[in-house]
Formats: sequence, C-alpha cells, structure tokens
Amino acid sequence: MLYLVGLGLGDAADITVKGLQVVKSCSRVYLEAYTSVLTVGKEALEEYYGKELILADRDLVEQEADEILKDADVTDVAFLVVGDPFGATTHSDLVLRAVNAGIPYRVIHNASIMNAVGCCGLQLYNFGETVSLVFWTDTWRPESFYDKICKNRTAGLHTLCLLDIKVKEQSIENMMRGKKIYEPARFMTVNQAADQLIQIIQRRREEGEELGVTEDTVCVGVARLGADDQAMRAATLSQLVSCDLGGPLHSLVVTGQLHPLEVDMLRVNAEPDALKHLRMMDGSTYCS
Amino acid sequence: MLYLVGLGLGDAADITVKGLQVVKSCSRVYLEAYTSVLTVGKEALEEYYGKELILADRDLVEQEADEILKDADVTDVAFLVVGDPFGATTHSDLVLRAVNAGIPYRVIHNASIMNAVGCCGLQLYNFGETVSLVFWTDTWRPESFYDKICKNRTAGLHTLCLLDIKVKEQSIENMMRGKKIYEPARFMTVNQAADQLIQIIQRRREEGEELGVTEDTVCVGVARLGADDQAMRAATLSQLVSCDLGGPLHSLVVTGQLHPLEVDMLRVNAEPDALKHLRMMDGSTYCS
Repeated sequence: MLYLVGLGLGDAADITVKGLQVVKSCSRVYLEAYTSVLTVGKEALEEYYGKELILADRDLVEQEADEILKDADVTDVAFLVVGDPFGATTHSDLVLRAVNAGIPYRVIHNASIMNAVGCCGLQLYNFGETVSLVFWTDTWRPESFYDKICKNRTAGLHTLCLLDIKVKEQSIENMMRGKKIYEPARFMTVNQAADQLIQIIQRRREEGEELGVTEDTVCVGVARLGADDQAMRAATLSQLVSCDLGGPLHSLVVTGQLHPLEVDMLRVNAEPDALKHLRMMDGSTYCS
Repeated sequence: MLYLVGLGLGDAADITVKGLQVVKSCSRVYLEAYTSVLTVGKEALEEYYGKELILADRDLVEQEADEILKDADVTDVAFLVVGDPFGATTHSDLVLRAVNAGIPYRVIHNASIMNAVGCCGLQLYNFGETVSLVFWTDTWRPESFYDKICKNRTAGLHTLCLLDIKVKEQSIENMMRGKKIYEPARFMTVNQAADQLIQIIQRRREEGEELGVTEDTVCVGVARLGADDQAMRAATLSQLVSCDLGGPLHSLVVTGQLHPLEVDMLRVNAEPDALKHLRMMDGSTYCS
C-alpha cells in the first residue's frame, strides 16, 4: 500500500493520529521537501516519529518515482507531504504511477494553507481562484496573477496568493555546466509579494488602466500558519511592504467584498488605520 | 484558553496528535454537531478520547455561547468541529466573543472538504467560488448556485458544491406551536443534487437560455471523504442521478476545464463512457 500522508502546517504534532500510526508501521517513509517545509526540520520529525525519513526532492519524485513505489504491492510505503497531499501541490503523478502498477493507495488528509487560511476570518466560501506569485527576475516579470486577483475582486471574492519557494534550485550557470550545486533556499515574504503587486499597480496606473487593486486595498499577511509563533496582519497593501512577519512560510490574501463579521475578524489583527478607508457597498458589504 | 480543534473528515483517529493532547487536557470539551457529522458518532469519540463530550447544537452555540466561554480565562475549554474550525463553516462569532472577553484562543487545524476534495484529482488551484445547494421545498427553489457554477465554468474553473444538511430542524408547524420536536436528520445526496441541477437545466433550456452546464457535464460525486469506505465517482450529471454512493456526507464537484493529468485522475474512478464526450479546447485542455 502507498500511503500519502498530510503533515499539516505547524510542527511534528500536527500529523493526525491515523497518520502517525501509518508512519510507524511503514517499511519506508519518504518526506517530500521541495514544495513546502514545516517549521521544524527533518531531524525533529524523525525523532518525533521514531523513524528514519528519506528526503524526497524533486528529482527523486519526478525521475525516480519507481524507487518510491518499489515493492509497495507487498509492503507499506508512506509519502509524507506538508499540508495535505492534494493541497497546494497535487501528487497526482505518483498516484497514477501507483494505480498503473496495480498498487493500492490511501490518502491521510490534513490541513493545508488552502483551507487553514480561513482562520484569518475571511470565509472560504468567498474565495475565488487561488494564484501563485513567483520571484521576479531581471528578465521575467509575469503579471498574470494580478489580473486574476482583479477578476476575483470584480466578482467580490478574496484571493489566496501562494508565495514562491525556491528550494534546491540551480543557478543557470551551474545547470549549464551540469554542476549539482544548489542556491540557498529562498522563501518569498509578504513584503516582497506586496512590493511586486505595487510595482504592477504603478506601472498600470501610468498606462492609464483602471485599477482593480490599489495601494489601499486591504490584504492579510499570514506567516507560519499553524505554528506556535504564527503571525497574521490585516493591513493595506502599502502597509504590508514594511510589515515584519518573521521567518517563512508566508502567504498573502487580497480581500474582495467583506461581510461585517469578516471585518470584525480582520480588526483583531489589523494595523492601525488599515480598515479606515473601507467603503460600504450596500447595507451589509464593505470594500477597500 | 479556548481551543478550536478540527477533527478532520473520517473517524476518531483523524484528529491531530496536538488536537488529541488538547482534548485530553481540557476541563470541558464541546462537540459542534449541527453543520457536519463524522461517520462515527459522539460515543465513539468519547471512548477514543477518554473524555466526556458536551453536544453543542445550534441553540447552544448561537444563544448560549457564554456558557461555552465560561471560565475559559482560567481553564482550558475545547470546541471540536468536524473538518477544520474555519472550513466550510466559520466559527468567527465564537472567536470574537472570546476576543472581546479577553480570552485567548488557539486553532488546531485539520482537513476539511474545502481542501481534501483535491484527492479526486482536480487541482485546488483550478477551483472557483464554492457554492451551497439547499434542499428545495414546494415554495422555495433557489437557483443562484447554478449561475455561480456557470460563472466558474466560463472562467474554466471547477466548482465544489456543498450539499445541504438538516439536523435538529423543526417543522414550521412545530416551530409555530413552540414545540421542540425535531424532524429526522436529512443529508442531501449526490443524486438529489444532480437531480436539482438537471431540473434547472431543463427549465432554462425551455426558456431558450444558453446553457453553461448540461446533462453531459462531467462531475465528481464524493461520499464520506476520508472515511474507510469513501466513495468517489466521475460521471456525467445525468449518470450521477442514479449513482448509489451510500450514506452521508456527500459533496459534488462540477468540472471546468480539465488538464490532461486531471482527466487521467478522473479516469481512475469514472463511470463507463463518462469521459467520452470530452472536447479538446486547445492542445492541452479538455472540457465537457
């Protein structure tokens, strides 16, 4: 049996009881470690589980999946994923390989940023399409996420922005030379995300475009969701540029229309003056 | 401290290790039991946790929240919610009461249908706004969810449809007489949901409306997600009307545009011929 086990978002104790039983009973346990990270490291997990973990980087999962699935028809293998196994990243490819090889699989679900972000007080019902923000480079500055956010806002919906993670990435130079030297891990902060968004807003304003998001749009910065030192800040986009939310992982939510109860929840973690420009749309809906 | 603890979706062992530690250490433990149910009952949970649970129905949570929060500044109280505490239902009201009373709170997240539905193979990235389907009555047949599904589909996005639950509901007659007699619990099935959708489609077709969803639209029926006997079926809407997925809880996903990998995943649990009418939109996207 192949078990895909979600680890949740905080630390080792966020695994489910069922998940922990599975980990303890499996003959091999892989830890997927390229799409997300727990605030605790591999060693802390190994100690907590009492089990050795095999780090599964992108190469292993994409190119050597057969190694993961080896003998999984006669023994139990676990594949651990931060969050939920089908959350922000889907591991459909591994599942399909198992199905095609006649290996049964089972999913042990857990919280992912896709649902846990509801704790900021914005109702998950009112979220539109989720978007990803990638690190810009000198030559590659995609803006498509901005248009999706605007589309969600036009429909009154909030947008969860997943922020880029660069783990075990090679520089183009090292890649061309075939050198397996990796750059230091980088995790996009809420500040960087807000800054990229504001650059787009400024550029489009200069072009005379009607703006769906502005510097005054109320957003929520979320850091280390589920961990003991989780941080959450409701603030305008321009306030978020200089907001220090600490270490990774960060996520950003751009609000759409707000129900009064959502505004009350945002107020719990709001920067001073962040909510003062809210406009009332009708008797019971606010917008920034 | 007020702890809001997500129970996940399957059985007692789907609680997180951290959540279980909290439950065991709290002086009072409430079980929210009107927006969702686990496939195991209250007694099974009590036995598993070794702890007595206080059933929190809608009246208790909405009208007697102070009872839940009583002494929570000096003792620990847990409020258990199936899925994630801020998943399909938000418990913002209870949290705000705690904040206003100066009682600290903490959330122990878990899987909810909002993220776990990703296991059907449709990427959560590609979901639009979630909708709710309510039981129709003789005099109340809302159709707004249909329009939201069409809007999502126009944008290429999938739609998660949460299906109605009627727990501890009074008949209008008993309500008017002030009699606290409750109707038997009812849970909308995928069949009923598909039937309501098809009735709307037929009515709108007669009115000459251009249809965003038809009887041939590929949907996924999901039952008892996360439980041992979870069932999942990819089928056309008309096939789902007669598909038996067993006991509650059911959810329905209406697909938007499909990536080939999503199609491959749907095929794993597809009814015969369900996917044969897929049209290719461009080199790499399908639609039904």
